[in-house]
Amino acid sequence: MTLRIGVVGTGMMGQDHIRRLAASVLRVEVVAVSDVNVEQAKRVGDGVGARVYADGHELVADDRVQAVLIASPGFTHEELTLACLAADKPVLCEKPLAPTIDACLRVLEAEAAKAQRLVQVGFMRRYDAGFRAMKAGLDAGQVGQALLLHCRHRNPDVPPGFTTDMMITDSVVHDIDVTRWLLGQEIVATTVYKARRTSKAPEGLADPQMVVLETAEGVVVDVESFVTCQFGYDIRYELVGETGTLSLSEQAGVLVRQDGQYHGPIPADYRERFAGAYQHELQEWVDGVLAGPVIGPSAWDGYATQAVAEAAVESQTKGDRVQVELVERPPLYA
Amino acid sequence: MTLRIGVVGTGMMGQDHIRRLAASVLRVEVVAVSDVNVEQAKRVGDGVGARVYADGHELVADDRVQAVLIASPGFTHEELTLACLAADKPVLCEKPLAPTIDACLRVLEAEAAKAQRLVQVGFMRRYDAGFRAMKAGLDAGQVGQALLLHCRHRNPDVPPGFTTDMMITDSVVHDIDVTRWLLGQEIVATTVYKARRTSKAPEGLADPQMVVLETAEGVVVDVESFVTCQFGYDIRYELVGETGTLSLSEQAGVLVRQDGQYHGPIPADYRERFAGAYQHELQEWVDGVLAGPVIGPSAWDGYATQAVAEAAVESQTKGDRVQVELVERPPLYA
Amino acid sequence: MTLRIGVVGTGMMGQDHIRRLAASVLRVEVVAVSDVNVEQAKRVGDGVGARVYADGHELVADDRVQAVLIASPGFTHEELTLACLAADKPVLCEKPLAPTIDACLRVLEAEAAKAQRLVQVGFMRRYDAGFRAMKAGLDAGQVGQALLLHCRHRNPDVPPGFTTDMMITDSVVHDIDVTRWLLGQEIVATTVYKARRTSKAPEGLADPQMVVLETAEGVVVDVESFVTCQFGYDIRYELVGETGTLSLSEQAGVLVRQDGQYHGPIPADYRERFAGAYQHELQEWVDGVLAGPVIGPSAWDGYATQAVAEAAVESQTKGDRVQVELVERPPLYA
Amino acid sequence: MTLRIGVVGTGMMGQDHIRRLAASVLRVEVVAVSDVNVEQAKRVGDGVGARVYADGHELVADDRVQAVLIASPGFTHEELTLACLAADKPVLCEKPLAPTIDACLRVLEAEAAKAQRLVQVGFMRRYDAGFRAMKAGLDAGQVGQALLLHCRHRNPDVPPGFTTDMMITDSVVHDIDVTRWLLGQEIVATTVYKARRTSKAPEGLADPQMVVLETAEGVVVDVESFVTCQFGYDIRYELVGETGTLSLSEQAGVLVRQDGQYHGPIPADYRERFAGAYQHELQEWVDGVLAGPVIGPSAWDGYATQAVAEAAVESQTKGDRVQVELVERPPLYA
Repeated sequence: MTLRIGVVGTGMMGQDHIRRLAASVLRVEVVAVSDVNVEQAKRVGDGVGARVYADGHELVADDRVQAVLIASPGFTHEELTLACLAADKPVLCEKPLAPTIDACLRVLEAEAAKAQRLVQVGFMRRYDAGFRAMKAGLDAGQVGQALLLHCRHRNPDVPPGFTTDMMITDSVVHDIDVTRWLLGQEIVATTVYKARRTSKAPEGLADPQMVVLETAEGVVVDVESFVTCQFGYDIRYELVGETGTLSLSEQAGVLVRQDGQYHGPIPADYRERFAGAYQHELQEWVDGVLAGPVIGPSAWDGYATQAVAEAAVESQTKGDRVQVELVERPPLYA
Repeated sequence: MTLRIGVVGTGMMGQDHIRRLAASVLRVEVVAVSDVNVEQAKRVGDGVGARVYADGHELVADDRVQAVLIASPGFTHEELTLACLAADKPVLCEKPLAPTIDACLRVLEAEAAKAQRLVQVGFMRRYDAGFRAMKAGLDAGQVGQALLLHCRHRNPDVPPGFTTDMMITDSVVHDIDVTRWLLGQEIVATTVYKARRTSKAPEGLADPQMVVLETAEGVVVDVESFVTCQFGYDIRYELVGETGTLSLSEQAGVLVRQDGQYHGPIPADYRERFAGAYQHELQEWVDGVLAGPVIGPSAWDGYATQAVAEAAVESQTKGDRVQVELVERPPLYA
Repeated sequence: MTLRIGVVGTGMMGQDHIRRLAASVLRVEVVAVSDVNVEQAKRVGDGVGARVYADGHELVADDRVQAVLIASPGFTHEELTLACLAADKPVLCEKPLAPTIDACLRVLEAEAAKAQRLVQVGFMRRYDAGFRAMKAGLDAGQVGQALLLHCRHRNPDVPPGFTTDMMITDSVVHDIDVTRWLLGQEIVATTVYKARRTSKAPEGLADPQMVVLETAEGVVVDVESFVTCQFGYDIRYELVGETGTLSLSEQAGVLVRQDGQYHGPIPADYRERFAGAYQHELQEWVDGVLAGPVIGPSAWDGYATQAVAEAAVESQTKGDRVQVELVERPPLYA
Repeated sequence: MTLRIGVVGTGMMGQDHIRRLAASVLRVEVVAVSDVNVEQAKRVGDGVGARVYADGHELVADDRVQAVLIASPGFTHEELTLACLAADKPVLCEKPLAPTIDACLRVLEAEAAKAQRLVQVGFMRRYDAGFRAMKAGLDAGQVGQALLLHCRHRNPDVPPGFTTDMMITDSVVHDIDVTRWLLGQEIVATTVYKARRTSKAPEGLADPQMVVLETAEGVVVDVESFVTCQFGYDIRYELVGETGTLSLSEQAGVLVRQDGQYHGPIPADYRERFAGAYQHELQEWVDGVLAGPVIGPSAWDGYATQAVAEAAVESQTKGDRVQVELVERPPLYA
């Protein structure tokens, strides 16, 4: 049994997914690709023997396409996801679900009217072995109730055009999602502290920042967001419980003793760090579509994360604590 | 050349100091002790062949006493320190310098009128090898300018009567002092977040908390203060600079592989963790008094730390960011 | 393009492989299984829709079977591998290639007469990310020439019937193979030291032992073989070069701070430790068979490892250094 | 109560000790120094206000000198130690006790005739916090009986004139002493393996080597002796017991994340690594001499270590296992 999928968007992220699907995901075939850049779509599609479309809607409409992976720019996500819902086709949509709270709500409402979930959002950290082990430990009561969560989210650098609000909407959204998923609680308030600006940041970028999140049950979360840290892609978490703490370990690798030091490796980028997570995300989504309901990050997760992100962007400007208000959660996401 | 000192206060802290002075500090002799509990003072004083006083002021006035170590309760610090200043005797005063900003200012003013410093405050972390190595790395430009500082301050438990404001005034004061010293900057604002309360905390204690400190040059500092963490006395710091980070390492000790785990030790309490720091603090103070000016934590440090601590206690109640205002720094502390 | 394989042996190892092939190996289908225990073969074969044979030779002869995976007991390996060679079918044979040097030589000669390699031996450590990174570092000249190699090979316990010579032939063979592969040199001598016997070892088992291996270029290798170490499956390597050392890191996982300790996990058994290695071994073998020559551990590797193992077993008895003599290496394995 | 000591030998080791005594050892005063290099002795002696002798025997005879520290070259140790014994003065003699087994035996016999021990040998590792914690863990039964011991003894480089046998007599002697002390057993046999020679070793030096030691109860010990390892002074131990292992941890220090790596420090030399051990050695010796019997490493330890070292030097040449024979242990050392 093989799932025939179509991939919308053949830029870097789309190509990464297509490569990954071919190299390491079972029970799936990419039968169609689309991109407004038709040349690129053709080059990528020919490589895997897929049909090529210039318009994502045509891809969604293709009868051979049983499920859709959206890797096109964020502003296209709403209409493409709605098209998938209209066609009753399961869809894995890269984050964000949509670039505004209102757009997220429109997707949410469209899906909430259905009998079962079709939409999954691409928060891949939930598929990382380390994060899963942390959650397993917490859920098993290994350290009692969660009280605090310390998060470090460091990128070596950013592409041109990266803006201060993107530090939240492109980067911290992952930490917002992990917080909600790990703790099983919504976030009710956020405060952003802009730290002393590094001389390595491009003009106009307020880097680094510390984002404080407060959850419904009072867990206080601090997220260091540092996107031009120079030294590597460094994701570190420590969860503080009543009787102990749980942390992500260093990544496995060879340890060296040389030149008066012992040292080990830090990943270079998110692809290296989360290679396994991306693969598990795709495999579990494929198997979920084939065999049962989709259970990954939902449209609700996409909406709630967006709501917190917008509050944090507001706090960036106001410099104050901003509360997060969510609509009532539809029964489909209970 | 031997320094003859008197120790005011023969409770736990005073006894610790006296034991340490006898066991591992050179060029010093304890010639007098005092305590309102004269029985205790006598027992302790007899052990080291020291004169015994019920009143600290008499000890300060004793001609044999060349310098004074104050280890009595905080409310006595102001008058005893002032007495030492009046007698022109060097004094090492356990923290706090005095329990209110105003009292600190009175000491500050008394000393500021003199030609040289006589007062040192007992912030012993500055004498810890790990903290010193961090500061040396930062000052050498190893990671560029400091941008963020993450601090964990965990005690396994607290004595009866420990209150929510003591989480600042007894515990976080050390982190306030380290921040000021490590970064070489004053703290200008603070915000306290009370986290979900641990079920292990005694009635009425809001434990743990996260304290955010902002420095004059914009460094953002987060301090986890958790005084009933159960698992050990756990002090961990990570300084984030422009090109890398510097962290305190785990304490040395034997590593064990057993029962499906590898593990190493966490100190049981502050005495174990800071044994070396206390010794260096005393030795350097003794040698400073004997051979040159006292250069340890000053009355200004005692005052500034107290000012930040009071702001944090205010933030605990108000739940808001509180700014810290300092008087002008007298030339003596330039 | 899918490779149709047959699996000989449906015991624990065979079942593990079949499960792995189904769950995580692409481009492969198990079309036949065999076992002298026909009931078991039927149960396992039915689970994956494969034909079932009582006799491995019939499986090898089946036209649908394009390649064979041998997971039956060691004494059957010689004749089954020879049958595959006679049928010109690629074969992945679990270690040992054959249980005696002479039997290994017969397989070697049968294959050496052919134009290309068909036989791969199941030394899966070569596919482990950690061992690969060590080799990459060494080959890149990161620490200069290799001088010494320290190996720890610890099992928590052994099944009933495990004998002293099996500590070499079942366990240390992996270290022999890694040594030869990592250093790119043959082993020329070996000495076995039986250490003080642990009280945890079953009657008659001389556990632990230290095996010294000497390579053609003088690298000295010490292997701790400890099969009832109680605490976990613990594989640790440190390669000492002219300018530094390279070590396997601890396995990734969650770090815990609790009860006066920080700790991390040690794997429970070889399946957990080498799950990734087994998967890569199978995927690369499948892809090698489909697309080009098989390049994994060869019949020569199987033979040379067996020769060292037999020398070590001799040293166990004699208590002396035993030299290893190899036949000339056939051109096929140049 | 202050101990007045004389120091024989004012070379590097003697000066280190004198500096250490002045800076960090209580209850001691250096009242005399001697060296055949009188200029040097004068310079050093004047610095601490000590009498200066050209001849160590005159220093031993000086009535002001209550105890003697011998830091002169090894060939002088026998006669100086015998002189101290004749004068009934406690003596701390740097290793070796004497440079031959016979010379060691002469000292042993001279002391064994007395009612109490006067001689201590300078094996300072026994005073290191890490080694002590390992021994405490073993003695407390934390990992059951000791079975194996893995030792790494790495120096960055050696002074001109360092010879192959000095790799044992100057370097591995420390590991021999630690093995005997840690395990509480004598060593009965040794085998030396010369590994592939590093290109960094000076002409004629067979570096590195692996020394195997076998104890009376069958513990097998492997010592890597590598004296031109380039990268630091790296002492690492792992003791393997029946239920787990105990290892020395990395030295405390600041951890850095930078340039794609996390790293920590390795000591530069033995002075940095064993600064604390040297201080404790001296303090405990001073206090032992002042208050009770000397209980540090004894003349017996000096003799037994020398016997193993000579056997290892023999094995270096013969390439074979060499047994160690000891005389009967005199009652004084029971």
